[in-house]
Parts: sequence; structure tokens; C-alpha cells
Amino acid sequence: MFFLRSSQLIQHRYVHSRGLGASPANPGAAPPRLPFSRVTQEVLAFFRTLLPGRTITDPDLLKSSNVDWLKTVEGNSEVLLRPKTTEEVSQILRHCSERNLAVCPQGGNTGLVGGSVPVFDEIILSTSLMNQVITFDNISGILTCQAGCVLENLSNYLEERDFIMPLDLGAKGSCHIGGNVSTNAGGLRLLRYGSLRGTVLGLEVVLADGRILKCLATLRKDNTGYDLKQLFIGSEGTLGVITAVSILCPRKPKAVNVAFLGCSSFQQLLETFQYCRGMLGEILSAFEFLDASCMSLLEKHLKLTNPITESPFYIVIETAGSNATHDEEKLHQFLEEVMTSSLVTDGTVATEATKIKALWSLRERVTEALTHEGYTYKYDISLPVEKIYDLVQDMRGHLGDMAKNVVGYGHVGDGNLHLNITSPSKDPALLAAIEPYVYEWTSEWKGSISAEHGLGLKKRNYIYYSKPSEAVALMGSIKAMLDPKGILNPYKTLPDNIH
Amino acid sequence: MFFLRSSQLIQHRYVHSRGLGASPANPGAAPPRLPFSRVTQEVLAFFRTLLPGRTITDPDLLKSSNVDWLKTVEGNSEVLLRPKTTEEVSQILRHCSERNLAVCPQGGNTGLVGGSVPVFDEIILSTSLMNQVITFDNISGILTCQAGCVLENLSNYLEERDFIMPLDLGAKGSCHIGGNVSTNAGGLRLLRYGSLRGTVLGLEVVLADGRILKCLATLRKDNTGYDLKQLFIGSEGTLGVITAVSILCPRKPKAVNVAFLGCSSFQQLLETFQYCRGMLGEILSAFEFLDASCMSLLEKHLKLTNPITESPFYIVIETAGSNATHDEEKLHQFLEEVMTSSLVTDGTVATEATKIKALWSLRERVTEALTHEGYTYKYDISLPVEKIYDLVQDMRGHLGDMAKNVVGYGHVGDGNLHLNITSPSKDPALLAAIEPYVYEWTSEWKGSISAEHGLGLKKRNYIYYSKPSEAVALMGSIKAMLDPKGILNPYKTLPDNIH
Repeated sequence: MFFLRSSQLIQHRYVHSRGLGASPANPGAAPPRLPFSRVTQEVLAFFRTLLPGRTITDPDLLKSSNVDWLKTVEGNSEVLLRPKTTEEVSQILRHCSERNLAVCPQGGNTGLVGGSVPVFDEIILSTSLMNQVITFDNISGILTCQAGCVLENLSNYLEERDFIMPLDLGAKGSCHIGGNVSTNAGGLRLLRYGSLRGTVLGLEVVLADGRILKCLATLRKDNTGYDLKQLFIGSEGTLGVITAVSILCPRKPKAVNVAFLGCSSFQQLLETFQYCRGMLGEILSAFEFLDASCMSLLEKHLKLTNPITESPFYIVIETAGSNATHDEEKLHQFLEEVMTSSLVTDGTVATEATKIKALWSLRERVTEALTHEGYTYKYDISLPVEKIYDLVQDMRGHLGDMAKNVVGYGHVGDGNLHLNITSPSKDPALLAAIEPYVYEWTSEWKGSISAEHGLGLKKRNYIYYSKPSEAVALMGSIKAMLDPKGILNPYKTLPDNIH
Repeated sequence: MFFLRSSQLIQHRYVHSRGLGASPANPGAAPPRLPFSRVTQEVLAFFRTLLPGRTITDPDLLKSSNVDWLKTVEGNSEVLLRPKTTEEVSQILRHCSERNLAVCPQGGNTGLVGGSVPVFDEIILSTSLMNQVITFDNISGILTCQAGCVLENLSNYLEERDFIMPLDLGAKGSCHIGGNVSTNAGGLRLLRYGSLRGTVLGLEVVLADGRILKCLATLRKDNTGYDLKQLFIGSEGTLGVITAVSILCPRKPKAVNVAFLGCSSFQQLLETFQYCRGMLGEILSAFEFLDASCMSLLEKHLKLTNPITESPFYIVIETAGSNATHDEEKLHQFLEEVMTSSLVTDGTVATEATKIKALWSLRERVTEALTHEGYTYKYDISLPVEKIYDLVQDMRGHLGDMAKNVVGYGHVGDGNLHLNITSPSKDPALLAAIEPYVYEWTSEWKGSISAEHGLGLKKRNYIYYSKPSEAVALMGSIKAMLDPKGILNPYKTLPDNIH
């Protein structure tokens, strides 16, 4: 992930007519402002009539919507709209389309690649008041809700009904389901329940010109023509604004166990993973890891306690099943196997909710611990699973003393590494040593330079490391077809140069 | 499903310059032939140089490729091409695109909606010689292969390596993985492993103009831009020709059990399903049903034996898990529960491969038994699971003596009913009584008029029963963008009238 430098941020905020220019030497920089119209008094009057009390122009109230969670990208939008209905979203976009006004759709604003905040003065279209559950069918487990429902609220709603959401992530307390779908969020349960491309059954989307696409099916199977909803999953609001989602939710497991284990090498961690898949099979719901450097940061900044003896690597394994006795037996057999074969050096197991939460927090709060480390360069890489830690070690050698910390954690089960490099403060020389090295490394192993975070503003120009130019050109054609004026989330996802 | 009448078939075969005309009164009819060019000697010479010995023009050899498996749609193509490489497919399409020649991509030709055979004289592009496994990674379970690999061959290849394909269907002995992906095939394992939209990780596709789109990723997660492969999954060869597939394959389960049970009402069957999901949970891999009429046809035409006492409904339950003892215990507890509560009247369980196969054949061979019944009108409907048998019963009342048999079977776990109506021979009056009644019924319950079979030639004009016109219009735009000359599988998927 590329962090914009402070000088650029200042330009973002105050210089609208002159852009920053993106060049191969600086592909993470923001592009020049495109010639969109400005919000006029007439436009504001229209919004105020349409959304009385929900058209926000107070700069203080706009502040938190203009800056991303990492506080690395800041826009200068002067209007935040809070529609409650799909019809209102449609009217907003029709108005913006006719007047050539750029729009930045925003959910919980928890994205890590600058995709959810304006780059210049785009109108912010927030889904925060679109937070109603529409239907839930407790036979099929199909939930239909508005896009602005907070993930954790949906989780609580479903747990009361003996179901769970098929996705879970650290930002659950703030992120919106519409944002999750727009960014094809991965998270902690993907290993078990698959991606949103399979679990999302239907979407309602408002297109750039205000047309409403009602594809809110609640069917597990529907082969009547092209699966249009897939276009909007993971396209980061650049092709349409998702206003409602229907999603297939699994039954709440009757038994959940979490094991926290230590390994003395990554090779042993991988061997443990292979045993785990074989012996835990269908009850395995997560296999996550963090390295010793992550643990140090958790202890130092968040005062968390390592529950086992110090190890170079830590694993979080979760099982979720329908029979507590069977699950415990499987877990016990697995632990016995990996302990006696010395693959695992130490470990602890939790079956009780509070202890489970405490063990999970060791994995979930690494991102938070890193924010206390000065400045962090963040990368979200997919690789063949056996290569994921090689990148961390290689980067340590490559950077030497330039970096304060080079840490690795992530989703072993999905081949997804979160590589984070810290520094006391922003350091252009360090950045130049990291990029494009990290992307070249990833590309060489046919990995993805963005496994689950998306491209947003920060990574769009690195797309060619993971996608061939024919594919990027086709993406450009799709964008032009669905949003010919380019008003939806401009400067995001697509690179500056499509060739 | 709508069967073309024989008079129409004859017109298909012999009248090329004048179409049959599709009108609201006859939406299943083939449209007029579009003004594509004819295959000339110059074109043939090009193909013979490119594909020596693999450019088939002998009418006898072309026969089986011109007619579908149900023998209800027959085209009159004069050329069948058998490329072996993606580069050859690219050259074929570039040539066809430049000369405005229509192309019908064909896999195993097992489709049920007339999607895989030419309607007029389209060039048949067969994937039958593109049958090589490219790579298999036995750590991740990711298989990459050419599009023409037969599903059963892939299954066998994987089983030797302790993995299985994530999909299984009755046509496995003939169907190609490329055809499976093009039609987003569902089948018997969808309940457990999800749809191809989740398990397919990458595709290589040749576009209409010959460009090769190399998106053959082998990563579980990749959020770098729009997920282009989704456009080609389920679009029935109308947007591009799939030449290679990478797919995530599950481990081979260590234990498989199959139970064949009888229920005295559909309500009891649904209650059994609820118990089943709760008690078998994560090891449930299939929950299928057939009614007593299906059983009669299996006994009558295929001489299969009903292994349990006669019942109005039969269920096939499959479990697949990692621990035989645990699985048998779960299954035993479940069976005890449903037998003592009288939800199930009789049943038998198999753990041994031959007996498992025999029980499965009672479900898998219903389609075959129906082909012996004179003429069969076939429908493949998604509905809320509690409604699926209401349609069968309603149809029986509605048709009365007009139909010989009205039978229902299918995938309860997916809310997918196969409704089949038999008649001694083709019967326009019967057809008029079935359609559009069956589609209206489905539409009223927000179902899908094609759950897993696709639209192909036969159902394309019924799309509006399941999709709003905005969605169909967008499909038309996508088609125009990717295949501006409309040469790829014309007359398929999209309706004659896009409004």
C-alpha cells in the first residue's frame, strides 16, 4: 500500500484546479482533478429539498467523512448526502449525472486503500441511514437488507435467530455490508464459507444515470442470463451504488473452539496446516497466523499478553461444527499429532466465548497495534501458500536497517499475507526501496498485489503487476459502458493509463 | 423447457434464408437467420491449413454435433473445427470475426436448452481435443486444465490424488469443464461446495475478435479490479470461448454415506430437511428428492428396484466428512430422530461404494427414464424451498388428463425443482396449457425459470419472467461491447426483443 505524502495531502485539500500528476516514477500519487462541475447553490437547494436535514455542509461534520481510517488520504468534499431510500439514491445520481457532478459512495469508511473518501471535492453519498433489514427467511437463511447495515449489527441480528453472517472482519463494528460487497471483503471466515461472489445472491444497484437495477434475487440458483451482480461486487463503487443486498447466511455453529499455537519455523507452520486440513476437515473455519514481531507490538502497544511460550510464529485455528463432542475429539487428535511430532511447540485451547474472544484479539488487533508504530507501509498480497513468508524474510534482508519493523500476519488458509513495514515517520527512501520491489516479487510468483483490500486510490496504478493489459482495457470498456461520464468514484480502481 | 416442433426442426435444417419468426405467441421458436456470411472454399482452405485433419466437413461426422442430446434441436452446420490450443481458437475467431462468420462453441453437447448446437449453419468450434490437465497443486488443491477435459476424467484424475471436483452431475461422462463453466452448471454437490462462481479461480478466454484474455489466476483471493471471469461463467459462450479453467478442488472426503429414505408427504420431507441441516450440519453434502411417479418410471423403463417400501416421496441424503466414526454417529442420531418422530417411513443406508452408486442412480437416472416416456416437457425451476412441490401439485390439477405424467425431482437443498410433464407424443394443446402458466407461477413466487440449465435457444425469450427489463438491456449492452458483430453463439441466451 502506498501512502500519500503530506505535501500531496495538502495539495488534495486546497488545490483543485491543478492536479498532482501520476507518472511511472510516482504511480501512487493522485491524478489531476477531472473537469467535473462544482456544487452550486442550485444543486444544494435540490439536495436540501430531497433530503431535508440530511444534506450536510458543515465542514466540522464533513471532516471525518473526508479522511480515511488510516488518516493517509484526505479529500475536500463540501457536501455529504444521507439518503434513506433507493429512490433517493436514484434521484441524487440522476441529478449528478445530468450536471456532471462527481460522487464518492461511502459506507463505514474503513477501507485501507483510499477508496472510500473523496480525492478532491466529490459529493459524498453515505449509506449510513440505509440501515434496515428488509427480510430474513429462517428456513433458507437468506437475509435481505439495505446497504448501510453495519456488519456487526447484522451478525447480532442473525445470532439471535441461530444464524451467522458468512463474513467476519476486524472492522465489523463500523463497516457496512454494502461496502463489504463493493470491495469484495474477505476476512476471517472465507476459508470456510467462501467469498461474497458465492454467498451474495442478489443486489439492488443504482447506476450512474439514476437507473435502478433490481436484481435482489433470494435464490441459490438462477441461470437466466448474465450474472450482473458480479459486476458490482468488488468494483469499489465505480460502476454503481449498491443500495441493498441479499446474502446466504450459514447456521450458527453449535460448537466453536479456538486453538492458539506456537511454531518454531514457517515450514512447521505449513506442515501443521496440512495436518489441520486433513484432520479437522469440514469443521476448520479459520487458520490464521502472526509472527513474533506482531506479538511484540501487541504486547508493547496494546498491553496484550502472550498466552503461550514465545515462538517465532503463532497460529490461530478455529473450528465450528454441529457436534461439540465430535469437534473436541477431532481437535484433540489433531493437537496430539502436531505436539508429539514437535510441529507445534506450545498451545492453548478455548471453548468459552470470553477466552475465544481474547485469543482472536491477538490476531484481529495487529492492525491496530501497528498504528502506534509511527508510520506503516501496508501490503495485502496473495501468493501460493508456501511462498507467503518468503516475501517477509526477503524484504527483511532487502531493507536491512532502513525499516524499523518488517512484520507478517494473515490468512494462511487463503494464501493471503499482510506484510507491514514500519518506520518512525514517513520515509521516501524506504518507500523507494519497498516499491516496486514488493510488486515485482509478487508478480514473479503470479500473486495478487491486492488480495482483499482492493485498489482504491492508492493501488490502482499497480494493477498491471497482477492483470494483463487486455484485462485492464476490458475493465475500462465496462466502466465507459456503465458510467460514461465517469462520475462514480473517480480516481479509484482503474489506473490512470489504460493501454 | 420448450421443445421445438418437428416442422420447425425441418425448417431449421433446410430453410436458411427465411426464419421461423419469434412472436409473443411462439416465444420458443427460433428467430430468423441473421445475415452472417457463408463458409466459402477460401474459408475452408484457411481452416484446413490451420487445423489439418481437424477440420470436419463430412456430413455423417457432423451429424451428432448438429443435434442436441435430447434430439429436440437440430442445426445444419457444415464445418466442425477441433482446435487443440488457445492460439488456434484465437486464429479461428479472428478469421470468423473478420469475415462475419457465426460460431457455435461446443463442449460435450449435453445441454438441455439447445445452447450447444447450431441453430442454422454456424461453424461448430469443439473443445473436444483441448483435453489436457495443465497443472495440479496438491497443497492448494488448485487444478488448471484445458476447457475440453471431460468432468469424469478430471474427477478420476483428482481422486487418485486424494481430491475431488467441486461439482458432479449426471452428464459427467460426456460434459466438458469448459461447458460446465460456460453454463454455470449446478449439480449434486452445490449444496456443499457452492457454485462455480466461487470455486472457479481463473479463466482463459478467447474473445470474439480473437483477443486472448489470460485471467488464469490460481489464487483464492484477488481484488485487483473487476472480476472479468464472472462475465464468462454462465453466459453460454455468447461473450467469449473459454479455453482453460483453474478451479479450487476440495479434499476427497475420508468417509461417504448415502441414505435413501421414504416420506409420506412433502411437508414431512421439508421437516426432515430441517432436522438434517441441524444434525448433519457441515457433513451434509446432498439432499435430493424424487416423487413416487419418478420411481415408477425408473422401475418401468430402467428396471431399477426400489430398495425401500413404496412412499409418495424419496430422499437421497449424502454425507461426506473427515472422520467415519463421527459421521456415522451423526447420521445414526439423525435417522433415529426422524424415524421415531415418524417423519420418515422407511430407509436404507449405504457406506460401500457399489451400494452408494446404486442408491445414487435412483436419483441420477430419472432424466434417462423420462426419455422413454414418449415426449417430455422439461422445466428447471428455482423457488423458495417450501414452495417447490406446490408447483408440481398445482400443475397436476391444472393439466388434469391432458398430461400422461407430471413428475417432480431435484435439489431440495438448493430450492431447485425439475418439473417434467410427459405425453405420448408432442402435443401443442398440452404445451399451450403448460406455458406460460408455469412461468407465470414461477414469476409470482419470485423464482427463476432456469435454475441451472441456462437459457440457450429454447428459453431465451422467457427471460423477462425472471429478470427486469433494465437487467436484460444491460445484458444486451455487454453482448454488444464484447461481441459487436454478434458472431458468438447467436440466437442463444439473449431474447429476440430487448426493451
